[in-house]
Amino acid sequence: MSLSKPLNWREVPFTQVTIDDTFWRPRLEVLKKVTLPNCLLKCEETGRIANFAKAGGRIEGKFEGIYFNDSDVYKVLEGVAYSLLLERDAELEAEADRIIELIASAQEPDGYLCTYYTLAAPDAKWTDMEKHEMYNGGHLIEAAVAYYEATGKRQLLDVACRLANHYDSLFGPGKRHWVEGHEEIELALIKLYRTTGEERYWKLACWLLEERGRGHGVGAIWDKPEWGPAYCQDDVPVREIEKVTGHAVRAMYLYSGMADAVRVSGDPAYVDALHRVWAHTVERNMYVTGGIGPSRHNEGFTHDYDLPNESAYCETCAAIAMVFWNHRMNLLFGDGKFADVVEREMYNGALAGISLSGDRFFYVNPLASQGEHHRVPWFDTSCCPTNLARFLPSIGQYVYARTPEGIVVNQYVRGEAEITLENGIGVKLKQATAFPWSGTIELEVSPETSGAFAIRLRVPEWCRGYRVQVCGEVLSGAEASVERGYLSIERHWSAGDTILLELDMPVEVVRSRQEVQENEGRIALQRGPIVYCVEQADHAELDYDEMTFSARDRLLREYRNELLGGVVTLQGKDGKGRPCRFIPYYAWDNREPGFMQVWIREPEEERLYSY
Amino acid sequence: MSLSKPLNWREVPFTQVTIDDTFWRPRLEVLKKVTLPNCLLKCEETGRIANFAKAGGRIEGKFEGIYFNDSDVYKVLEGVAYSLLLERDAELEAEADRIIELIASAQEPDGYLCTYYTLAAPDAKWTDMEKHEMYNGGHLIEAAVAYYEATGKRQLLDVACRLANHYDSLFGPGKRHWVEGHEEIELALIKLYRTTGEERYWKLACWLLEERGRGHGVGAIWDKPEWGPAYCQDDVPVREIEKVTGHAVRAMYLYSGMADAVRVSGDPAYVDALHRVWAHTVERNMYVTGGIGPSRHNEGFTHDYDLPNESAYCETCAAIAMVFWNHRMNLLFGDGKFADVVEREMYNGALAGISLSGDRFFYVNPLASQGEHHRVPWFDTSCCPTNLARFLPSIGQYVYARTPEGIVVNQYVRGEAEITLENGIGVKLKQATAFPWSGTIELEVSPETSGAFAIRLRVPEWCRGYRVQVCGEVLSGAEASVERGYLSIERHWSAGDTILLELDMPVEVVRSRQEVQENEGRIALQRGPIVYCVEQADHAELDYDEMTFSARDRLLREYRNELLGGVVTLQGKDGKGRPCRFIPYYAWDNREPGFMQVWIREPEEERLYSY
Repeated sequence: MSLSKPLNWREVPFTQVTIDDTFWRPRLEVLKKVTLPNCLLKCEETGRIANFAKAGGRIEGKFEGIYFNDSDVYKVLEGVAYSLLLERDAELEAEADRIIELIASAQEPDGYLCTYYTLAAPDAKWTDMEKHEMYNGGHLIEAAVAYYEATGKRQLLDVACRLANHYDSLFGPGKRHWVEGHEEIELALIKLYRTTGEERYWKLACWLLEERGRGHGVGAIWDKPEWGPAYCQDDVPVREIEKVTGHAVRAMYLYSGMADAVRVSGDPAYVDALHRVWAHTVERNMYVTGGIGPSRHNEGFTHDYDLPNESAYCETCAAIAMVFWNHRMNLLFGDGKFADVVEREMYNGALAGISLSGDRFFYVNPLASQGEHHRVPWFDTSCCPTNLARFLPSIGQYVYARTPEGIVVNQYVRGEAEITLENGIGVKLKQATAFPWSGTIELEVSPETSGAFAIRLRVPEWCRGYRVQVCGEVLSGAEASVERGYLSIERHWSAGDTILLELDMPVEVVRSRQEVQENEGRIALQRGPIVYCVEQADHAELDYDEMTFSARDRLLREYRNELLGGVVTLQGKDGKGRPCRFIPYYAWDNREPGFMQVWIREPEEERLYSY
Repeated sequence: MSLSKPLNWREVPFTQVTIDDTFWRPRLEVLKKVTLPNCLLKCEETGRIANFAKAGGRIEGKFEGIYFNDSDVYKVLEGVAYSLLLERDAELEAEADRIIELIASAQEPDGYLCTYYTLAAPDAKWTDMEKHEMYNGGHLIEAAVAYYEATGKRQLLDVACRLANHYDSLFGPGKRHWVEGHEEIELALIKLYRTTGEERYWKLACWLLEERGRGHGVGAIWDKPEWGPAYCQDDVPVREIEKVTGHAVRAMYLYSGMADAVRVSGDPAYVDALHRVWAHTVERNMYVTGGIGPSRHNEGFTHDYDLPNESAYCETCAAIAMVFWNHRMNLLFGDGKFADVVEREMYNGALAGISLSGDRFFYVNPLASQGEHHRVPWFDTSCCPTNLARFLPSIGQYVYARTPEGIVVNQYVRGEAEITLENGIGVKLKQATAFPWSGTIELEVSPETSGAFAIRLRVPEWCRGYRVQVCGEVLSGAEASVERGYLSIERHWSAGDTILLELDMPVEVVRSRQEVQENEGRIALQRGPIVYCVEQADHAELDYDEMTFSARDRLLREYRNELLGGVVTLQGKDGKGRPCRFIPYYAWDNREPGFMQVWIREPEEERLYSY
């Protein structure tokens, strides 16, 4: 089946992409000025950094916190590295170097690194597969690769390689079994392979993937009857996966690792499993916001179409992990439907995790709240803030991709990019757009030397009708048709050539499929990639779930520069004729506390027309 | 109930409206150059005009054709009058004068005028209420009023008054009963009252309305058990009407007459009946094209949600009559939902009745055809061509209306208008828009002297999101909210002030409600007011109903200047990945013969997302 065949498109790293818009650019600035320093401070204040100093014998003291706390430091360091890649900063780099020095000091002579076990239970290493030893290690590897790329400094990369070598010495064919309770190490090892060229890293990753679902799991998860192996995707061998199960972040990291594995192994059974589980995830277990994992109980999946709004768990990390996975799927299979999901998460499920001020975070992202749910500066389990810290600065990587034939435009973000074609020719791209508030995109294409290549433009799933011009000439019929989510323009390009893409971006009334009982008789509003909600801040007089809104009613769209960092609001009348206002879901809980709802009740009324 | 209260907005006659666009303007030219001369010629060739000469003793001969043929001559004359109002034309006027002279000659000394009875059955007058005696008379009256307005010549108006006086002498309280089998006389008599000021005309109209449903009907309809009184809305007194029944054109003319009656009588029972029957018509018995009356058997209604596509009758006259009725409802009740229906008919159901060449017509307008249904130059019963001949030249009357507070913009058509406010101040309006192909409308407002008044802009039901600026300033919240279909801008206007209205006009996937079994598993496409269809001309390789189209697929929209008089086509891939093209429904059957479909089967596939 052709849909399944890997195409292996190539990344265009965010270092090649300059973002210069009013949507992401301010967020990147807040990230650098507020989020990263705050996260570093929190890691310091909560003893996360001190754990390394203690393990390295630099200071005295016991392990503080939870066994996976090392990972937060690594993830913030990864974010720092991305930030440095965007803009060098001597002070930030010095701080990172200082922390790296402490991390290195905490590595045991054989390469082992996990401050919890070193400090608290040195004799219990590798006894409980739920204790995140390799999860921590995976994040170390990702941070190390990022920091090496950002600074050229090898210290952390060397630590990472020693750790990976240590894993490889203990685990693998003919050695000990291991089912890492929280996936992450798999994708990290393949990343390390791609940076170092060391093949045993990808082989270890593939072996770790194959360990799952074969009864090797031991530890807290496996002992808990209400969780069991499905909680960490250890219920079936990965090549037999049919359904998304268990803890949402773990599942997404696993599938990300599997997608990476396909790039090195080409295993067709993995390809089929990925397609199956992707369909099962998005067709039966994803919220309109892109949120996944409805249940607080297992931080994950329950049964199909179980999408409660008020009790939705929808961990921020899970939304970010959906980006990781879908970005990989997009590159692997060259289908725009994966980039559609990336977009949905970027503008909704993932972005909601952080306040406009950059210093408060959601762990849990419900689609309805009576007014008690608010962002906070930090958590004991602070994976979400630190995931945002590395997700946001690298957002530019989702904008473009490369194919053997040319360039892919996956996301519409104002700015510039330098992309080198496979034939070595450099192409400068300039995107002018007010996306996500407008669907009009002007693209200036400037190859160093003129030549024939293809530019694929994603036509998002929310866009029904579109129009495209090249150098002022309207394209028609076959030359502008959409295949697997892309409109492909193949021609001889010269410097200064332009594409004008007009994507219809109407306000759309979204209705749930009937299987989602929670949303029966309700509608949601979406415009372009942005899912909307109502907040009490705009409806002081209303009670929770009191509002009704008719799908027939018209909405005034207005760009409000001073509101919530600049948003298009939708204003109309509710079912009782009272003024109502919808704001982007990602921007909720940035004003006075109060209720919020995405799915609004429709007033009981006849549909207008008979057909 | 406030919705029911008559507001009595005022007409802005088409003589005050200049149309200067690429959509309607060419049709008006074709109308004048092709349609009207052809209709006159056909009336001549088929003996319709000769019948008057014969009845007037100018020539010898028997009555030729069907008993309602007089009405065709009147309707063409009405169209000629409207054409003369748009542009005087000595030749055309001379031809009209010649025909009017013959009509006048056919009037009997007592005022009676119906060439069928005069020539074929002089002793059988007023014995069969189905024989269209007053229907003919009603169209004479409408033609007479129009011609008088166009030329100031009274000859035909005098004929009409003598005829109306004759009716009044025979029928009315204490005189003979009469239930006219085909309504038309009612609205015509009220029109005649408004031109002459003669109150007995509206009183006779109201009496005729009240005659229905009281057992007075006699004649062919009443004798046919399969028709019976419901066929001509004689089953219940009009004030008790709950449901639309019987022959579609007759029903619409009746409701138009009732709406006119409310303007003179204010009868609240009529108001309620009109609202009830309007809801029953559009909520249960209207096609997506605006077509009404599914059955060939009674040229009318059957049971709720009976909307078959291939066998749809949808008489052109019924679509035009929906315009007449809904225009009256809009003026009467000041609600945009009625103008929405006017628009739907203007761009779909009614317009499909005429070929782009202006000389071929549909009587029947199915929503699917296997390739055997085509327009023809004329019919034995030629009501549809002659209705188009009077509908099209007067299309400008639907663009604006007046309220005590100011001006209503009901339709978006490029051109200018001169409207006098109730305070006597003249306002020049200039609309610049590429409607129906674009939803952007620029309106220049130039009152003779500055002053405060309101401009209501209709925000159509197909438009979910909109944006509006006045003199470059974006309106927000309450000042731009939509009430009963209108956005009302109340301010002090000075010459040259501008409104920029942006109506989202996406391609929309329309799904039928489940009660319409015929459309189960099918979708239709609509963009702005235009309903689309597929034709074999674009799909030579396909069989009828072979195409499938997924609601998820994207469509390239392209304005094709050279195609079908200039249309926006929608191009995509069908369910099997083959190129497909949608064209406006109104434009079908203007190329080589072949199948046509509005409702397309959806391929069997899972809906993409879970929510």
